[in-house]
Amino acid sequence: MSDRLSLPWASDFHCHLRQGDMMDTVVPMVEQGGVQTVLAMPNLTPPLTTTEMAVEYGAALQRLAPGVDFILTLYLSPELTPEEVGRAAKAGITAVKVYPSGVTTNSDWGVLDFKAYYPTFQAMQDHNLVLCLHGECPSDAAKGICILNAEERFLGTLRELHGSFPRLRIVLEHATTKAAVDCVKSLGDTVACTITAHHLFITIDDWAGQPHHFCKPVAKYPSDRDALQDVVRSGHPRFFMGSDSAPHPRRAKQGEKPAAGVFTTPILVPLMATLFERLGCLDRLESFISTHGRSFYQLPPVAASAPRLTLRRVPFVIPATYTVKSSAQASGREVDVVVPFMAKQELAWQIDNDA
Amino acid sequence: MSDRLSLPWASDFHCHLRQGDMMDTVVPMVEQGGVQTVLAMPNLTPPLTTTEMAVEYGAALQRLAPGVDFILTLYLSPELTPEEVGRAAKAGITAVKVYPSGVTTNSDWGVLDFKAYYPTFQAMQDHNLVLCLHGECPSDAAKGICILNAEERFLGTLRELHGSFPRLRIVLEHATTKAAVDCVKSLGDTVACTITAHHLFITIDDWAGQPHHFCKPVAKYPSDRDALQDVVRSGHPRFFMGSDSAPHPRRAKQGEKPAAGVFTTPILVPLMATLFERLGCLDRLESFISTHGRSFYQLPPVAASAPRLTLRRVPFVIPATYTVKSSAQASGREVDVVVPFMAKQELAWQIDNDA
Repeated sequence: MSDRLSLPWASDFHCHLRQGDMMDTVVPMVEQGGVQTVLAMPNLTPPLTTTEMAVEYGAALQRLAPGVDFILTLYLSPELTPEEVGRAAKAGITAVKVYPSGVTTNSDWGVLDFKAYYPTFQAMQDHNLVLCLHGECPSDAAKGICILNAEERFLGTLRELHGSFPRLRIVLEHATTKAAVDCVKSLGDTVACTITAHHLFITIDDWAGQPHHFCKPVAKYPSDRDALQDVVRSGHPRFFMGSDSAPHPRRAKQGEKPAAGVFTTPILVPLMATLFERLGCLDRLESFISTHGRSFYQLPPVAASAPRLTLRRVPFVIPATYTVKSSAQASGREVDVVVPFMAKQELAWQIDNDA
Repeated sequence: MSDRLSLPWASDFHCHLRQGDMMDTVVPMVEQGGVQTVLAMPNLTPPLTTTEMAVEYGAALQRLAPGVDFILTLYLSPELTPEEVGRAAKAGITAVKVYPSGVTTNSDWGVLDFKAYYPTFQAMQDHNLVLCLHGECPSDAAKGICILNAEERFLGTLRELHGSFPRLRIVLEHATTKAAVDCVKSLGDTVACTITAHHLFITIDDWAGQPHHFCKPVAKYPSDRDALQDVVRSGHPRFFMGSDSAPHPRRAKQGEKPAAGVFTTPILVPLMATLFERLGCLDRLESFISTHGRSFYQLPPVAASAPRLTLRRVPFVIPATYTVKSSAQASGREVDVVVPFMAKQELAWQIDNDA
């Protein structure tokens, strides 16, 4: 058993890099977690609905982490006309994110009716943009829809979109169910799926009474987690890493109404290495955290000559908190912290590029 | 539509009355909630495993609320020999509570193997004690058991117990699933079921990201809540109120690991009246909160001449918190509060015995 892993720097195809103090804090942690290509989610306040907004956000991110490749996205809204899709493509924007209305953080501006956006999807297909789906139906007790079956109920929409736009590349993000895995496998090569680190670890029992494990979509049955682990272990080329790392200040997670989101950015690759080893599939790690996603997103493969990431089998205790950079310290206000996933627990691997 | 309801004082067949400061606070609230007969749960620290402990606890409760009838229970453990069952029956203890190990608050001393207790169950049947079941299997990911299917997976044990001890009165407590409702309906007259107020209101969506709605068993699918509402609406005589009101200090609910439990004691009957009216079955309220349970527990019917409870249709805003009585106030320490179910929301009815 080797005590050293050499990997390409990873690509994270779903990450919340936030704004303001939180952005200043989190963006430099992308490389700390072993990632050099990261797809930045557009659910800011206000959401990134225009090319200009996304490009400006990308520039801000780039200033904070000059060594990282940021993949930019737009938030689907009525502003995203077919013409705007053309402008976005020209400006180097890669993907458009769809949030069904009300399903997660900052999704209040989200979509209620997919059909209304068919001209936009057509333009996206024509301009080779990727459609990223938060694949959940809004809860509706009268229709029997709740957060447990919201993903499964969404799969019909995924099938319909794929049927209507077979050349449009679609990513079903942060899959949490066996139903979603089976559905994506059954569809064509233009449909892929991201899986988070935390959904490979936890089930509903881990977030009930544990706000730092609460995220949307929620982790579900053990059999669902098994399905996620199985597809990762199988090395299926249309499944790859999207961390959905979503930092919130601790006070927003431990209050009356804990915010949804799990924070994994600064520990991402060691977390994945630890898990893949437990699952007996360390040989699948590189493709899951790099090759598969880059291929689907039509990014160039990481050059053989590029610097690589070294992980060593040295136990690493995840910090209890990460401090949010801010002017608060100076002004004497209370300092915000973010609690990471598996805080205070031990990972088997750590990044050690001096090794 | 009448704006006045006249009811017998209610009977709550499942309530956590706690110890120490919390007991001093909660017990006087039983009558405030419209209840005069209450079954007190034995999961204290240490649990009430002997007749003496239960009798002593009962005396303490009685001192705090002389007008309330307390139904005493024992916590099933190896100390509960068939001989001890005889002593308990003689001392006026009514029921024995079974907690499968590890499923909820203070269940660490709980049962792993039901068969080992068959001689005790036989003695309970002989002495006409009631068996109260927290009907969940411990979570075990390897067996696919999680908090979502833990109740359904337990139903085989319920059926087996009923088959082995057909004359033993068994209560499946705080049912949360259609499967449990169907199972209890299918069994004989010696098997009954309690339902809480909160499980008639909420689904999983209401406790995800809402620690004050988090309890065990967790609220589940809308279809499960529908089944609970349906059986209540049908007036089935073996289904009755057990609030499972379980107060925790706010700091224990809003921290890193929120405790399981929903607090309804001081608002119980107005809450039930509000819900039954919404469900269009106010005519079923009296039997659900009084007659059915008293009949199953073989308590005398409330005398026709007994003072009655009056509810008036006057909107009542549930307080944000209830303060825990304690010496802390005097000593300058922070005062504990308990957040009730539906805090700050409005009920349609309130108790008004001066009306």
